[in-house]
Amino acid sequence: MDGFRFSTDLKVRFNETDAQGVVHNSAYLVWFEIARIDYLARFPGGYKGLVEEHDVDVTTIESYVRYRAGCRFDDRLRIWARTTDLRGARFRFEYAIERLTDPAGAVAEGWTAHACVDAKTLKLLRMPVWLAERLAELEL
Amino acid sequence: MDGFRFSTDLKVRFNETDAQGVVHNSAYLVWFEIARIDYLARFPGGYKGLVEEHDVDVTTIESYVRYRAGCRFDDRLRIWARTTDLRGARFRFEYAIERLTDPAGAVAEGWTAHACVDAKTLKLLRMPVWLAERLAELEL
Amino acid sequence: MDGFRFSTDLKVRFNETDAQGVVHNSAYLVWFEIARIDYLARFPGGYKGLVEEHDVDVTTIESYVRYRAGCRFDDRLRIWARTTDLRGARFRFEYAIERLTDPAGAVAEGWTAHACVDAKTLKLLRMPVWLAERLAELEL
Amino acid sequence: MDGFRFSTDLKVRFNETDAQGVVHNSAYLVWFEIARIDYLARFPGGYKGLVEEHDVDVTTIESYVRYRAGCRFDDRLRIWARTTDLRGARFRFEYAIERLTDPAGAVAEGWTAHACVDAKTLKLLRMPVWLAERLAELEL
Repeated sequence: MDGFRFSTDLKVRFNETDAQGVVHNSAYLVWFEIARIDYLARFPGGYKGLVEEHDVDVTTIESYVRYRAGCRFDDRLRIWARTTDLRGARFRFEYAIERLTDPAGAVAEGWTAHACVDAKTLKLLRMPVWLAERLAELEL
Repeated sequence: MDGFRFSTDLKVRFNETDAQGVVHNSAYLVWFEIARIDYLARFPGGYKGLVEEHDVDVTTIESYVRYRAGCRFDDRLRIWARTTDLRGARFRFEYAIERLTDPAGAVAEGWTAHACVDAKTLKLLRMPVWLAERLAELEL
Repeated sequence: MDGFRFSTDLKVRFNETDAQGVVHNSAYLVWFEIARIDYLARFPGGYKGLVEEHDVDVTTIESYVRYRAGCRFDDRLRIWARTTDLRGARFRFEYAIERLTDPAGAVAEGWTAHACVDAKTLKLLRMPVWLAERLAELEL
Repeated sequence: MDGFRFSTDLKVRFNETDAQGVVHNSAYLVWFEIARIDYLARFPGGYKGLVEEHDVDVTTIESYVRYRAGCRFDDRLRIWARTTDLRGARFRFEYAIERLTDPAGAVAEGWTAHACVDAKTLKLLRMPVWLAERLAELEL
């Protein structure tokens, strides 16, 4: 997937399918989150450390999914993720989902927009410099 | 349903079905919990009040489901619930699920076992007398 | 909510919350679908009839959510829904979510884009005239 | 875990937690299913092959979970699984869940009871001999 440097793999769970025989549209947001968490796990402490040690909470303020082809039970998927648009408290993740058994292009794409907030007051909080720098490094 | 005095109704959600065309086995535990919460909502403050005002947390320590007939998207269900076996910190809920469009007996049954714990320390906590008395009244 | 004529109500389920104490971002797509299904239930046969009697399947091709305020366990929500942009096989649903206990504006908004497909071949299928006419009537 | 020969690992997903800060009780049934599917994946074709090539469907008729300690976001878990009680159409899976970062015994245990049914008629179907033999071999 062009422009992506990070990905995480998963296998479609049976409970993620619905009676149309394909994955329910809400599961993609769960997969995006898994990719986000694995992306951030490369920092010391990861996402948990971010929250627990730095009192920074990351909220989701927007999400968008483009569904291109239905995913089925047991499909092996690769979720690509990258950060973009860091500005003050806000930043975005972009995603592309590829089916490993049938790599004919993305089966889905999407993005989520986030804001850093103070874990106690929930007020907007400029992204900590160390985090902004690490994200910038990762996507250079 | 014999021996039950309380029930709550719901409609099967599309995302609760799976690729076998019927409801996924894990959804029944979600429905049991909905019935539990609606059952307790008859107390002042309900389940939230229990936790927030009385510092009592209710944990689930066991769950059992007997699946008798597959439920399908859009089925109207009635979830019957009752409390039983109050002893110290512990008590149980029993459930029966009936399909309203086809009331030929329970489509599922089950029970969950719970313990009252201190919301802060998570230590076992004898059920508050007022709660034990209310539960006993409700099931007389 | 301005411009909406249809809504459906629900209560936040405990399992829809996550460890941040608010509803998980993926649950909103489940609620949008519930509103869609209830919206279509006003047709004879509803969504199920559409699929089972008319061999029309409705796929989701895009989804977007704008999260404005966290929803919490037991919140009473009203999900507003309307159809828009009917063109050939494609159409959209728009949504706004209001908290009934705190009606200070939408806690979330969003839209989903859909296509009618043949339930067997999954090929794009112009929306049946009777359906397009009913949708147009509902939103006049 | 005594008596188990098969296990599969997973990491707790954020959406599997609830507002009590621990994993929701219904997620354990999803994990049991993942273990079941991975267990059966050692057969040619796996669970999908069982259904698609042999017209055998496996239904869940009972489930039981004993929750011993709350699991948290990002916990690494090992789900142990074994089959038992093969009799005619029926058989059971037993499970134990261990936290890899804190291997002080099972955080949960449980079992599910299943029946083989004809994938078309849903009538009970004696377990195919080849499958019974493979299961017996695996657990010798």
